[in-house]
Parts: sequence; structure tokens; C-alpha cells
Amino acid sequence: MTPTLAPQPTVARVSSDVFAPIAGDLEEVERILSQTLSSERSCVADLVNHVGRFRGKRLRPALLLLTAHACGPVTHAHHVLGAVVEMVHTATLVHDDILDAASVRRHVPTVNARWGNQQSVLLGDYLFTKAFHLASTLDDVRGCRIVGEATNRVCEGELQQGAQCGNLDLTEGEYLDCIDGKTAGLTACCCRLGAVFAGATAAVTESLARYGRALGVAFQIADDLLDLIGEERTTGKSLGTDVAQQKLTLPLIRLLRNSPAASRVRELLRSPGNHKRELLGPYFSQCDALDYARRRAEEFAEQARTELDCLPPSAWRSILEALPQRVVHRVT
Amino acid sequence: MTPTLAPQPTVARVSSDVFAPIAGDLEEVERILSQTLSSERSCVADLVNHVGRFRGKRLRPALLLLTAHACGPVTHAHHVLGAVVEMVHTATLVHDDILDAASVRRHVPTVNARWGNQQSVLLGDYLFTKAFHLASTLDDVRGCRIVGEATNRVCEGELQQGAQCGNLDLTEGEYLDCIDGKTAGLTACCCRLGAVFAGATAAVTESLARYGRALGVAFQIADDLLDLIGEERTTGKSLGTDVAQQKLTLPLIRLLRNSPAASRVRELLRSPGNHKRELLGPYFSQCDALDYARRRAEEFAEQARTELDCLPPSAWRSILEALPQRVVHRVT
Repeated sequence: MTPTLAPQPTVARVSSDVFAPIAGDLEEVERILSQTLSSERSCVADLVNHVGRFRGKRLRPALLLLTAHACGPVTHAHHVLGAVVEMVHTATLVHDDILDAASVRRHVPTVNARWGNQQSVLLGDYLFTKAFHLASTLDDVRGCRIVGEATNRVCEGELQQGAQCGNLDLTEGEYLDCIDGKTAGLTACCCRLGAVFAGATAAVTESLARYGRALGVAFQIADDLLDLIGEERTTGKSLGTDVAQQKLTLPLIRLLRNSPAASRVRELLRSPGNHKRELLGPYFSQCDALDYARRRAEEFAEQARTELDCLPPSAWRSILEALPQRVVHRVT
Repeated sequence: MTPTLAPQPTVARVSSDVFAPIAGDLEEVERILSQTLSSERSCVADLVNHVGRFRGKRLRPALLLLTAHACGPVTHAHHVLGAVVEMVHTATLVHDDILDAASVRRHVPTVNARWGNQQSVLLGDYLFTKAFHLASTLDDVRGCRIVGEATNRVCEGELQQGAQCGNLDLTEGEYLDCIDGKTAGLTACCCRLGAVFAGATAAVTESLARYGRALGVAFQIADDLLDLIGEERTTGKSLGTDVAQQKLTLPLIRLLRNSPAASRVRELLRSPGNHKRELLGPYFSQCDALDYARRRAEEFAEQARTELDCLPPSAWRSILEALPQRVVHRVT
């Protein structure tokens, strides 16, 4: 039995309609992406074409562009950096799919499922280096520096998470520190790039970076909930990979702390079986773990919104204000 | 039976004595490396400390520093960039060990053997991002750009090689194109960085980059020979990984073309056995494949040396002139 999703206030994904006002900017980002990743070597081109099919919400370039519009003029540098952050994000997806031994992403086979781990490791590296090199084509070294700081933090968060697999005593604080790195490091970077390259003041830049950070944490908690209770048909990706690896996420941490049957949950997580996600369902229905995680995601979403007080009212600010709710209540 | 090494003109590794004149510079590179990779997170620190044990010849920073000295004044930027290229190189070793399923490097367990593939993927990513970020701490964006161009080429070469595993019809030209990317891309970059940041002219810079490229190709041919006929006791790393993966290198390409028993060699390479390296020995002794590969390495070494004609005579130029021979005749 897969626990079902509680009724959702909005059954929205972070869909393109919210991003309609930046459609032209996103098109320019796409053009740069496809130009940067074109290769005459067919083995490279085949792999790159395949990850093009993972094309998702473009949340990260959108965050960068919306922040930029909210702060000042949008320039060529923003479009370039939008492509950079999307490539970094895609690289992390390709490597994550190896770590999670995932077989499906966005309804198509993962790179590791189709070409094996070797080519997945190399393709992730390729996307990383192409991203860094693209950032360096700007004359302003701050692009490379901000992206580099963020990817340092992303990789640290991923390493921490990897080291914690199998640690059933992980605390909420340790979990939040992991996702603050692995997910929020990049969303914060997007907002920082948007602001810095639009000439925002240091105070506004820091506030928007905190917005991006809180939004990223909210996003990841929602993502971790989907891994437990989402539907593969809807999300289009392998689910249950966290429990399969004994990777504790917020609902599981809460479940292990508050469930009257915590010791049986612990045994279940330790067991070698393949259907842990399904078997956990009844335990979740006996305690507040899922609601608790949803509430925490809402709190981070709210925290993100308050950071926008640094901006004057505008259409851009309104979209940024709406995003955290969308992120928390998405089903894909 | 493991084929034995033909008598070596010099039984040298690229040892520290050659680099004595830049010992102070290399110490400064070490200081920056250890400062950059220090982490308060113990899971990160443990992994980083372990790869510290892979410490090798520091050939890449040495190339960068020698080129710099030969062209003009050596600055802080050179030391920083020396640390950058060493980190990039270490990242590729960590990921290569996953691809090769290698268990030993520099006489200690590989990261994948000790911590598994997941942490190896992430550690390689971490070293890459730390390298790029370190380059971005310089105010001159050319550092990031030159490193990014090189790592683009390195990753492309690795992807090509990965796609060619199992292709027993690989040509010498295709092989050279692979190693021109995966190995020579970085050695050329080292020389380019040394020259550019010492204020060399464009003509001298291009000549020295070609020196680094030819040296890298010679180095890789020698490395591929060691994988076939070196001794694990001496090299301190897993050998025979190329044949195990049906990854054709120059001696094998020649063997498949010139051996009277080519079809049996082909069967042997296709077979599932674990002792292919040993079984290939007799076939190598019946044809010129090993000598041919050594000769080609010598040719690239000679090609490298001729590029140094752009430099005025100096102690630095003399060391650079001696390096290609050392690289070709090393046994570790």
C-alpha cells in the first residue's frame, strides 16, 4: 500500500504559466544552453541530447531572471548565467541518479540506466566543466566565484548526505544542514547572481540570497515527501530511493522519533527488502510525521517570502512571492 | 606470465631532484592545496586526507611553474593555479578509479575501494568545484577560462574513450584523439597558464602549450605501456585495467594490426577471463607492438622538445628539455 497524498491546496507543478513574463529570457537561456552543449563528437552529442529530455521546470534560471528583473536591468550576463546554473543542476541530477541507482527521470531512462555508470560519471563531469567554462566567458570573474562558492557547498552537502546513509540517528539539524548545502546552495546562488549582475546593493543581494536559500530548503523537503508518498506516474522519476538507501529525510526522522512503533520502523529500514516505501505507509498514518514535514516546508516558504520585503512592489516581486507556495505544493 | 620490461635507458621516475630548483614554489602550492581543502566537516576531511596519500610527482604544477620561470616572473597567481591544476588532476584520478574499478593507487586503497562508488563520485565533484572556485579567487578571469577550456577537452576525451570501450577496431588516430583530450588537455593547460601569467607573447604561449600537449601524449603512451607491462609492486596501482575493459591502447592497436595471431588476440580480449594481461605476453613477444608504442612515445617527446626553441637558453629551459625523456622512461 502506497500512502496517498493528502488533498493538495493546488495541484500545480511550478509550471511555465508563472514564468510567462520571462518567456523571452528563458528562450535566450535555451539558445545558449544548446549552443554551449553542441558537440561534433557523436558520443558526446548522443548523451547531451538524452539529458535534454530531462528538461524540467527551469526553476533555477527562472529564479535568477526574476530576481534580476526585480533589481534592475536584465543583461546578456544573466542569460549566460541562467544557462550555467541549469547545466550545474543537470550535472547534479546525472550524478544523483548514479548515487540513487535510479532508472527513470522525467519519464525517460536515466543516463546510468541506459549507458552505465561510467558514462554517467563522465557526462556529469562534462556538464560541470562546460558550466564553469561558460561562466568564465564573461569578463566579470564574480560569476565564476559565486557559482564556485555554491557548487562547493552543494558538493559538501552531498558528501555529508552520502556519509550519513544508514545513520538512523540523524537529527533534524543535521538533515537541514545537508539540504542547505546540496539544494539550497544552488537556489541561493541563482538569486545572488540575478541581484549582483543587476547592480543590487549588498543588503538587497544578501536578502535575496536568503530568499533563495529558504526556498531551496522548502523545495527539498517537498521533494523528499514526494520520494515517500508521490506517484511515479506523475513525478516521472524513480521514487523510494531514499528509504532504499536508508537515507533519512524529515518525515522519516520525525517518524523514528514520534511513532509508537519506532523500533519496528527501524527494523524495516534496516531490512534488505525492496518494498520499504509501501510497508512504511501504515506507520505514517499513525503519527504526524508527514504533516510535520509539510508544516516545516511551509515555514521555510514563509521565511523566504519575508525576505522579499527588501524589494519595492512590482510584478516580479509578486511572482517571487508566489513561488514558495508553488514549490511546496507541487506534485512533480 | 607477465611480460617483463625491456631494459630501461634510465630507471628514473619523474623524481623530485629534477624539480629541486622549484622546491620553494612547490611548497607554496602544497600550502595553498592544504588550506583550500581543509574542511570542518569530518566526512569531507577524512576523504580529502585519504587522497592526500595519492600524492605523486606533482608533474602538473611543476610544468606550470617551470614554464612560468622560463617566461618571466613567477607570481602568487602561478602558485594558486598550480594548486588548481593538481586538484583537477586528483579529481580525474578519483573518477578514473571508479571507471577502471581500480582498487589500489600509490600503494593505498582507492577511494572507491574504501568508501564505495557514491562517495568517490562526490569526492571527484568536490575536488573539481574546489579547483574552479580557487581559480576564481584570482582577479583575472583568464585563469578560469584556460582551466575551463582544458577540462572541457579532458572530459570530452574521457567520454570518447568510454564510448570506445569494447571497440576492437579503434584506430591509432582515434586513440590519439582520445588521449590528446583526456591527458594532454591538462598538461597543455599547465604550460599555457605558466606562460600567460608570466606575460609571455601569444607566439611563445602557443609554442609552450604545444610542448605541454606533446609531452602529455608521450606521458599517456608510457602510462598505457605500464598498464600492460609494468609491475604493480613498482607502480603502486592496479594494472591491466585497460585490457580488462577492452579499452584499446597503442600497443594493443598495433598488436591487433600486426600480430600473426591477431584473431586469437581478439578472442582473448573478448573472453571473460581475469588474466588477460598475463595471457597477452607471448603475443607481444612475437611482434613489434611494444617497441612501436615506445617509438611513438619518443617521437612525441622529441616533438615536445623542439617547441622549446621559442625560449632563450636558461636553467628552466634545460629542465623542460629533460622532462619528456623522463616521462617516457619512467617506471612508476
